[in-house]
Parts: sequence; structure tokens; C-alpha cells
Amino acid sequence: MAAMGEKFVVGLIQMRSTKDAAENLTRASERIREAARRGAQIVCTHELFCGEYFCRTEDAALFDLAEAIPGPLTEALSKVARENEVAIVASLFERRAAGIYHNTCAVIDADGSFLGKYRKMHIPDDPLYYEKFYFAPGDLGFPNFDTRYARIAVQICWDQWYPEGSRAVALGGAQVIFYPTSIGWHPKEKAESGRAQLDAWKTIQRGHAIANGVYVAVVNRVGFEGDPAHGDPGIEFWGNSFVADPFGQVMAEASTDAEQVLVVECDPAKSEDTRRNWPFFRDRRVDAYEPILNRWLGK
Amino acid sequence: MAAMGEKFVVGLIQMRSTKDAAENLTRASERIREAARRGAQIVCTHELFCGEYFCRTEDAALFDLAEAIPGPLTEALSKVARENEVAIVASLFERRAAGIYHNTCAVIDADGSFLGKYRKMHIPDDPLYYEKFYFAPGDLGFPNFDTRYARIAVQICWDQWYPEGSRAVALGGAQVIFYPTSIGWHPKEKAESGRAQLDAWKTIQRGHAIANGVYVAVVNRVGFEGDPAHGDPGIEFWGNSFVADPFGQVMAEASTDAEQVLVVECDPAKSEDTRRNWPFFRDRRVDAYEPILNRWLGK
Repeated sequence: MAAMGEKFVVGLIQMRSTKDAAENLTRASERIREAARRGAQIVCTHELFCGEYFCRTEDAALFDLAEAIPGPLTEALSKVARENEVAIVASLFERRAAGIYHNTCAVIDADGSFLGKYRKMHIPDDPLYYEKFYFAPGDLGFPNFDTRYARIAVQICWDQWYPEGSRAVALGGAQVIFYPTSIGWHPKEKAESGRAQLDAWKTIQRGHAIANGVYVAVVNRVGFEGDPAHGDPGIEFWGNSFVADPFGQVMAEASTDAEQVLVVECDPAKSEDTRRNWPFFRDRRVDAYEPILNRWLGK
Repeated sequence: MAAMGEKFVVGLIQMRSTKDAAENLTRASERIREAARRGAQIVCTHELFCGEYFCRTEDAALFDLAEAIPGPLTEALSKVARENEVAIVASLFERRAAGIYHNTCAVIDADGSFLGKYRKMHIPDDPLYYEKFYFAPGDLGFPNFDTRYARIAVQICWDQWYPEGSRAVALGGAQVIFYPTSIGWHPKEKAESGRAQLDAWKTIQRGHAIANGVYVAVVNRVGFEGDPAHGDPGIEFWGNSFVADPFGQVMAEASTDAEQVLVVECDPAKSEDTRRNWPFFRDRRVDAYEPILNRWLGK
């Protein structure tokens, strides 16, 4: 692990994905190389970047999209990592066993070695996001990964709405939390609540940075996926990938609709400084938080 | 308790406080009456409204400012509550026993009855906010209070930086969380980091609304307190009291420096709707949150 206090540089790959897995992998790899050329040391993809966001429908045939992790996909990415000396956080569809699949991130170090994986803990299920059909809830807890450049953690999409997950990885020493994401607007909702949805999404993740004095790096996909002419209303993924510093200030932000690679330097001294001046961790009431281990505190 | 689904109206009293406790109580009472005339049903003061924010220095003589709760102060406020049929959340300095003092909120119902109290759980201590000298940490957990108009909870100032507290009261059924506060700028920090501090403060509390699908009502004091000519640099309290809806959208907001009474209608149907459409509570991993009961997850 990097000595405490060394700066590190994150790269966020905001891109579209198509139905062609090989083509998505090729394009993502090109952008990872681009990010590395621009100085990035730890690069993150958006959620499930190897394909369209297929959870828009429930179709058992789509389990064919999953792969073992580690497996051929992580081997291909390991080569990119090694050749460019860049750690990679890659969001993939994991086949664990017949009937057991996960929404998983592989973490590959800058020498190409497989550091481990995180399995999405909070699984959503709402119209056009039918994830409970595809993904068993994660069972690896809230781990950290010591890459060559920094200690990092991952929270995947729906996880980003849960302060508990970000808190757990921050207490584990994460210097930056990556949030690979596929979130967008339902075409019929965008006019009425699109602005508020995007604002809530940014606000709660900036809140995780503030609560924990940690960098957050959010990577979302862009592009419209759907087929309105044939009954699939589709989703307009809203991009807006961003990095916030340990006080929640946005340091860099991508557009709503364009492919973009963000490269941002993070300084652990900023976490140290934030936590010294507003020392929230010191005063946590760890003796009194047990109520939050309940679903609900009533009947 | 009000039937689920009934609207209720909150009133936020943003004001200055002086060293004259009786005068502060009189002015606060006037404003509570004003809020009630404008329709408020549950009114909240700023933190420790009966005096200046005395924690700017450590002085054992200042324990004289504390009172028993319930006691003469809550009796005076009960009269205001009863006469105006308004529930009152009053932030007070509690003397519990010789050597045991708390930063406490009394909750008084609209018939004047004393519903209970909340003792600040997270106690800060940093330059000009020497609260650990004055206040023992709260030992009443994270309660809710069933007022005539709504089920409410209170988190006091520094508590507002802890997602755990807001989560606990939300799981207890709070329809609105009040945050009586005394926060401001150190004169020497304002130019460099004042904007970011205010922004972080608003963001994390809006985040609590979003994470929990609950109204948040934040009441801060205004005015400069200090004596720069005699070595007390003072604090410029930044006001900005606000109410955010269960999706984190700001519904009303006071200024940075003026006394102001905010009266805002809240609709429990909005919480119901928010939690139906983005049902975070359904997917919480209550089996996996135990790590956050630790101070730190390392050596």
C-alpha cells in the first residue's frame, strides 16, 4: 500500500455501451490507456460497461452475458493494467454458479494482479431496473483494496444511496470510494422530476464525502438505451460523473450526454486536514448505533 | 399521534440571542406566537436560544446558566404552547445533577404537556466550540416524540453531521427531523472556507432527507457574538435555516444574517411517495452493517 500521504490520480471513464461486449471492452481499454497517458493511476468504468444496461427487462437468456470473475474479461483487463501501470476497477456481470449471479466489481492492481472483488450489496428493483431478477445480494461485506497507489473501496450504483456502505468502507481506511453507476431518466419522468433526481443523486454522494472526509469518484454511463417503437421506453443515462473532495466540493464533473474521461489528482493530506478540523470520527456514538441494524423500529 | 397522512406545518425561529435570558425567552415566545398565527403547528428554536453561544470559552461559572428540564423554562414555554396550540421544540442547557449537564431539547405538546427530552448525542470540541467542557454526552438514545400534529425527532447541531442519528430516528418513524443549531464562521476562516463550510452543512442535511425520505427542518441562529477588542474573536452565526422535503429539495430558506420566521407545510404523502418510488428502506442490508458500530476498522 502507498505510504499515507502520497497523492494519487483517479481516472473516470464516462462512456456509452452497446450490445457488443467485445467492442465495449476495446473502447473501454482505449480510454483506460488514454487516462493513464494523462496521469491516471486508478481508473474506474461505469456499471456493467460490457453491455447495455440489460436489467431493463427480465429475460433468463441474458444470464449468458455473465462470466466468471476472475476469468477471460479480467485477464484482458489485467493486460491493460500491467501495460499501463494503472489499477482498474471494472464493473462486470459475475457468474458464480448455476443460478447464482452477482453485480460485481473486479479490482486489478497496476501490475495486472487480481486484488479481489466487491459484490453489490444493495440490489434495486423498480420499473426498468429489474436487478433482483439477475443479481443475488453481495456476500463479501464492505471491503477495501490496497492498490499500488491508494487504498480504495467500491460501492455500486444503488449502494450509493446508503450512508452505511460508504461509512463502513471509510472506517476500513478507504482513501477514495468509487461508485460505478448506470442511472438515468425514464423518458416520461424527466420533465417533471429529472432535475430533482439528478440533484438528489449528486447531493447524497457528496454527503458521503463530507460525513467521512473521503474522496468520492462517481462514474455513470451516458446514452439512450431502449426501443420505444417496440415497447421498450428505454432509459436516458445522465452521465454527470464527478469527483468530490473530502469536504464534498466537486473538483471535476462530466456532461450529461457526452463521452468523457476525467483525470483528477487526490491528496490524502486533504482528508487528514478535513478530519482534523471537523473531526466527526472522534465523536461517533458507536455505543448507541445498534438501532440502525434493524429494518424498522416499530411494529 | 396524528393519523398517517395528515399534513402538518412547521415553524422555524431564526433569531439572534443576547446574554439576557429573560429577554431571549420573551422574544422567542413572541415569534412562536407569530409562527402559530401564520399556521405553524410545531415550532423549533435554534440551539441554546436562551443565551449567547457560551461555549466559546471554558468557564465553570457558566454552569449557572443551566436549569432543570422540566423546570421553570419549560413551564413558561408550556404556557405559550397551550395558549397557541402549538408544539414546541426548545433547545436548552440542562442541569441534571452537580457535575452533570446536557445540551438538551425539550419537546412540549400543543396542550402544554411535557412530552420528553432529547440529549445531544454527539458533542463537539474545537476552537470556540468547547462543548465537551460543558455537556456530558446524551444517554437517551435517538427518540421520537408523538406530538398532536406529527411524530417528530430532534438532532442537535453537531449531530447533523452523523448519518447514523438521522437514520435511527427515521427508522423510529419520524416524519420530520428538527436540527436546532448554532453554527457560524470564525472571522479568520470565512474568506477562505466560509462558502464551502455552509455548502457542506446544507448538503449533508439534505442528504439525510434523501437517504431517509423524511422532512428535515434546520434552525440556526444569526448574529455576531464575540468581543474582538478583548481577545474573543467571536463567531458570525450564518443563519440559513431551511426546510428540505423527503427528496432533499429545499422548500424554504432564511437569509444569512436576518431574523426570520419560516412557516412550511409538510405532507406525509410526500414521504410515502418518495419511499415508494425509490424504496431505499426495503433494500437495507441490516445483516451487514455491524462494522459501523466500530470506531475504526483497523489497528
